[in-house]
Amino acid sequence: MTFPAAVKIVEVGPRDGLQNEKTFVPTEVKIALVDRLSHAGFPNLEVASFVSPKWVPQMADGAEVMAGIARRPGALYSALTPNLKGLENALAARADEVVIFGAASEAFSQKNINCGIAESIARFEPVAKAAKDAGVRLRGSLSCALGCPYQGEVPVAAVIDVVERFAALGCDEIDIADTIGVGTAAQTRALLAAVSKVFPRERLSGHFHDTYGQALANIHAALLEGITIFHASVAGLGGCPYAKGATGNVATEDVLYLMQGLGIETGIDLIEVVEAGDFISRAIGRENASRAGRALLAKRRDAQAACV
Amino acid sequence: MTFPAAVKIVEVGPRDGLQNEKTFVPTEVKIALVDRLSHAGFPNLEVASFVSPKWVPQMADGAEVMAGIARRPGALYSALTPNLKGLENALAARADEVVIFGAASEAFSQKNINCGIAESIARFEPVAKAAKDAGVRLRGSLSCALGCPYQGEVPVAAVIDVVERFAALGCDEIDIADTIGVGTAAQTRALLAAVSKVFPRERLSGHFHDTYGQALANIHAALLEGITIFHASVAGLGGCPYAKGATGNVATEDVLYLMQGLGIETGIDLIEVVEAGDFISRAIGRENASRAGRALLAKRRDAQAACV
Repeated sequence: MTFPAAVKIVEVGPRDGLQNEKTFVPTEVKIALVDRLSHAGFPNLEVASFVSPKWVPQMADGAEVMAGIARRPGALYSALTPNLKGLENALAARADEVVIFGAASEAFSQKNINCGIAESIARFEPVAKAAKDAGVRLRGSLSCALGCPYQGEVPVAAVIDVVERFAALGCDEIDIADTIGVGTAAQTRALLAAVSKVFPRERLSGHFHDTYGQALANIHAALLEGITIFHASVAGLGGCPYAKGATGNVATEDVLYLMQGLGIETGIDLIEVVEAGDFISRAIGRENASRAGRALLAKRRDAQAACV
Repeated sequence: MTFPAAVKIVEVGPRDGLQNEKTFVPTEVKIALVDRLSHAGFPNLEVASFVSPKWVPQMADGAEVMAGIARRPGALYSALTPNLKGLENALAARADEVVIFGAASEAFSQKNINCGIAESIARFEPVAKAAKDAGVRLRGSLSCALGCPYQGEVPVAAVIDVVERFAALGCDEIDIADTIGVGTAAQTRALLAAVSKVFPRERLSGHFHDTYGQALANIHAALLEGITIFHASVAGLGGCPYAKGATGNVATEDVLYLMQGLGIETGIDLIEVVEAGDFISRAIGRENASRAGRALLAKRRDAQAACV
């Protein structure tokens, strides 16, 4: 059993997390959150989505957020770009990486965007080409890789098909996302082993949700499979849009605590992330969904109380 | 990577869980909870502690609970027995298994029971002998195996020393407990590998807390180490006594969901456990701490709403 010496943790809370929160988060709060996370040392942060505000009002201020943040040299700031118009806006906002997306589930694709998987990815061709021409990184995000709220099981072959389509578009990195958090460890490992036969393992990332409490076990399994890029959301920001009251993205603090315990380098300051998680949870009036975050904050409160 | 075909899940919510809840839970609620869990198929349930009610008022009704439950044939009902008086009460209540305990941390032992580790376990000698004479199973529960709230790190040698003392007392099973949930996967695996050199692996159990969100990753690691007995608490009952607001025992529903996904047999009906978790959470007015439990309950609510 060998683990990688270092991993890249991509903080997705400001985009994937806040997009799935009910309330609109003020632009200055988003900027303050990103700045705290940048300071904590993340090498890559997903901060905006240049999608129509009609569809995703929570992300309407993407340009202002991108313009307002203090960028840490060397860190990459990513934005979702659903179409050419979105790409133009992302480039104007100086995104370092743009993200295109597709589902591995035909039922999900049809229901969500009223369009089959193959066509939905083909539509990204001009976006991918323009991104390449502009010299920014291109990431492909593949949802429902371990299960779908509509069709249930998702065949491995369907995941591989989308990965190959993303690869053909020139994606530098591809996310394997368990959008509804139903996957378990052995399934995760088998899927990643299969996918890494058609796309370089070191450019695959694991995006896990903690809906059924499985995210850290799945990350542990993915590490054993040689995956070195993981997405996480500070304070577990982001609900599960398919089950009200259920948990969404895995909390960054829990992932960092795991990596620290395994002796895997991330370059990120856990305590600064815990504080960022406390800040955003209070700012939006939401319970902090990170267990490590809650435990470390409680420990500090108890220590402070003992000092009084 | 091979997993065991089957594991034994020991439900500890009615004792370890409820003992660490602030409120006293009425006897009839405890009985109803145990009966639901028995019906769900657990092979072993920890239901009482025959300790002085002065010390643990939450468990003062152990004899009434043991007398009131409907026992499922074949299932074992366990009780904590801190001394000979406790053992007599447990035997009178027809406990199938009695549990003695000790910490692997000298600081914890001193602070908690004002007595060193070696002496604390030596005191159990007459209890262990009487249990053996009475023909009931004897379990040794070893706390702070992966870390201590007072001394921090706990040496592997200290864990092995306590395991050997429990073995010498005739323990049929020994729990390796991460009482404060600070352990991570590689540490868990290394500890269990070391301990199983001095005590049969198949009679070691993993007792994990989810305080830092690591429990399922640790269970995954323990499975890879060949451990086949795990403790879990329905709805994640039980707080963390060392950090207010932090999470305690790993939730049974999350563990069962993991085992189901890994194709590992437990003999337990997950949905019945989810319902038992919903029942007790409502009964004591506490948020259900099981992620799988919340997700499955939310899914059912959503489905019911869709039908209306």
